[in-house]
Amino acid sequence: MGLQSFVEVHPDSHFPIQNLPYGVFRPEPGSEPRPGVAIGDYVLDLSAIASAGLFDGPILRRSDCFHQTNLNKLLGMGRPAWTEARATIQKILSSTEPTLRDNASLRQKALVPMDKAEMLLPMAIGDYTDFFTSMHHTKNCGIIFRGPDTPIPPNWFHLPIAYHGRASSVVVSGTDIVRPRGQGHPTDNSPPYFGPSLKLDFELEMAVIVGPGNELGKSIDVNEAADHIFGLVLMNDWSARDIQAWEYIPLGPFLGKSFGTTISPWIVTLDALEPFACDAPKQNPRPLPYLAEKVSKIYDISLEVRIKPAGEEQAHVVTRSNLKHLYWTLTQQLAHHTINGCNLRPGDLLGTGTISGPEPESYGCLLELTWNGQNLLSLGGTTRKFLGRWR
Amino acid sequence: MGLQSFVEVHPDSHFPIQNLPYGVFRPEPGSEPRPGVAIGDYVLDLSAIASAGLFDGPILRRSDCFHQTNLNKLLGMGRPAWTEARATIQKILSSTEPTLRDNASLRQKALVPMDKAEMLLPMAIGDYTDFFTSMHHTKNCGIIFRGPDTPIPPNWFHLPIAYHGRASSVVVSGTDIVRPRGQGHPTDNSPPYFGPSLKLDFELEMAVIVGPGNELGKSIDVNEAADHIFGLVLMNDWSARDIQAWEYIPLGPFLGKSFGTTISPWIVTLDALEPFACDAPKQNPRPLPYLAEKVSKIYDISLEVRIKPAGEEQAHVVTRSNLKHLYWTLTQQLAHHTINGCNLRPGDLLGTGTISGPEPESYGCLLELTWNGQNLLSLGGTTRKFLGRWR
Repeated sequence: MGLQSFVEVHPDSHFPIQNLPYGVFRPEPGSEPRPGVAIGDYVLDLSAIASAGLFDGPILRRSDCFHQTNLNKLLGMGRPAWTEARATIQKILSSTEPTLRDNASLRQKALVPMDKAEMLLPMAIGDYTDFFTSMHHTKNCGIIFRGPDTPIPPNWFHLPIAYHGRASSVVVSGTDIVRPRGQGHPTDNSPPYFGPSLKLDFELEMAVIVGPGNELGKSIDVNEAADHIFGLVLMNDWSARDIQAWEYIPLGPFLGKSFGTTISPWIVTLDALEPFACDAPKQNPRPLPYLAEKVSKIYDISLEVRIKPAGEEQAHVVTRSNLKHLYWTLTQQLAHHTINGCNLRPGDLLGTGTISGPEPESYGCLLELTWNGQNLLSLGGTTRKFLGRWR
Repeated sequence: MGLQSFVEVHPDSHFPIQNLPYGVFRPEPGSEPRPGVAIGDYVLDLSAIASAGLFDGPILRRSDCFHQTNLNKLLGMGRPAWTEARATIQKILSSTEPTLRDNASLRQKALVPMDKAEMLLPMAIGDYTDFFTSMHHTKNCGIIFRGPDTPIPPNWFHLPIAYHGRASSVVVSGTDIVRPRGQGHPTDNSPPYFGPSLKLDFELEMAVIVGPGNELGKSIDVNEAADHIFGLVLMNDWSARDIQAWEYIPLGPFLGKSFGTTISPWIVTLDALEPFACDAPKQNPRPLPYLAEKVSKIYDISLEVRIKPAGEEQAHVVTRSNLKHLYWTLTQQLAHHTINGCNLRPGDLLGTGTISGPEPESYGCLLELTWNGQNLLSLGGTTRKFLGRWR
């Protein structure tokens, strides 16, 4: 039996004392945003804990990082601060520690019922980058968009391919997404289609939240890259496949993606994920020295996507995948990003790309699941090619 | 004879009272950054002018937009504020207005010799987008990278193609750029090259600085797009052609660009550019209704690139081009960017893409000028394929 909290945590909760993901929330409408961590059905208000003087370690004692409206300051402080914060929070939430447990007035102030908390985007995102690191997804998209000859481009096994995404339209889970209008690929010699996207899709991803950055012109060593990663969020890289297919040659995806990208409000730290670390897949050909890691690991994280049609009670599972299906590790992605001297900043978001597994049931988007609309996906009583019932 | 300033302005100065571009500067090392406008060989310190109570119009009277360390607040206030600011500044700088002219102590405070001022990035850039709107550049790159068959992709005449760039590595003119390391395209079956880029290039561009933005999910009408444009900067989109050629399939340019992008410290406003407006090129096929403008204009701005080799006295002109060579207008670029609901924010940077004209002497980058290194470019006594003498 491991560490336990005095806060009651249901056995199937995502938020035991071993997790403690970070977010930013308002305890009530109109109140100032503040950092918090999830514990059971509560959010622990870190500004209240800091005001009570409970962050008494050498780094955090004099810091105002928990009196900010986002996590960027904490992100920039790096692993020593994160380790100290985690130790302090685990201690004050543990069942054997009386400080918070036996202080009813502080508990009242600091433990906010999660269903009362309004969750916000946890950090100001300077830049958002999206990688393309699942081999299965790459191969499926290659066949669908470019045909069965060499669906995986020759560069793919040498470097973690990525593109710059749009930071302004990254929103927190629960934010409405408006179906984008745009130009779709013409058929034959007709003019391009214009109107609301007919091929709206989700993409199952996770994303790294960058901690301390690097100076412009300096690179981050792949073996030190983990110290620049605060943690991971879930991400849905909403995609309009008809817009994307028409616009992406030769400079890549643009409006087919930039209408909205959703991330989870909770950032799960690398410390919390450590028990789920596993060996990364073997890479062949061997990566160039700047991408060769002393220890090459990924995390065994089961991922699931459910769709709940409008007006229906029930959500339907449409895919089951796992982070461990990625070919390139998170640390390789980050190191590659800086090999040219590009500067990362605290709060930057690095998406993994769609996480598809090898089996059709594990494909991470409808483009693959319905093979670009050629097959129907069953959702209880109805079917889908892409998102929405209106076509 | 038009409006004249009491500040002496040389006839060949870029900064007569008709221009008045905005920037952000430090009057001396370590002092607080503040907004300014250029006039002759001086920078007018707008924080000093505001402190003296000279911004006395209805919008700016109570605003603290000139007491900020960047221009974002002014950018977000929109055209009425910009018009009021320009009128006020032109008035107080004019030869017939005694307020500043005859106040030695205020002149001493507010007029900073340009060679003493440290120019900074004028705004915080939320997102940076780079378009691809010169037909000549598109065609030349198409032939070089993809061969002579259909060098201009079929989508190009239907929409202003663009990609998301890296905001963190945008720097102000004069900032050193470190030659990026990275993977270059392998020849035949060899492994990819790794090392400092062998094909470092400049790209002659201009870029829009966005004023008021739009809400996520709402588009900006092309006929109202000009009200969302504060002004233009010069831009050098440094490019590593060997890195770019290897990485860009299928998701576009990434590390071949993100090691640095230089913009001028001065933003020339659309108001100042109005006398240089001219008809935009005729577009065929006719653009879709959301891109069809009642008035379709561009600006006649002569552009020149000079290279000054290390250790030499003299800079050599390597290209002469003009903004009017663009096929898609600035307002079409901005409207297209939002047609899917993507939200722009004050301070966003929208590059035009390389501005190449029809003649070889007007090509906007070395890739085109030396045809990917096949020809030598003469620079006084030496020659170049790409930037740097070391290869």
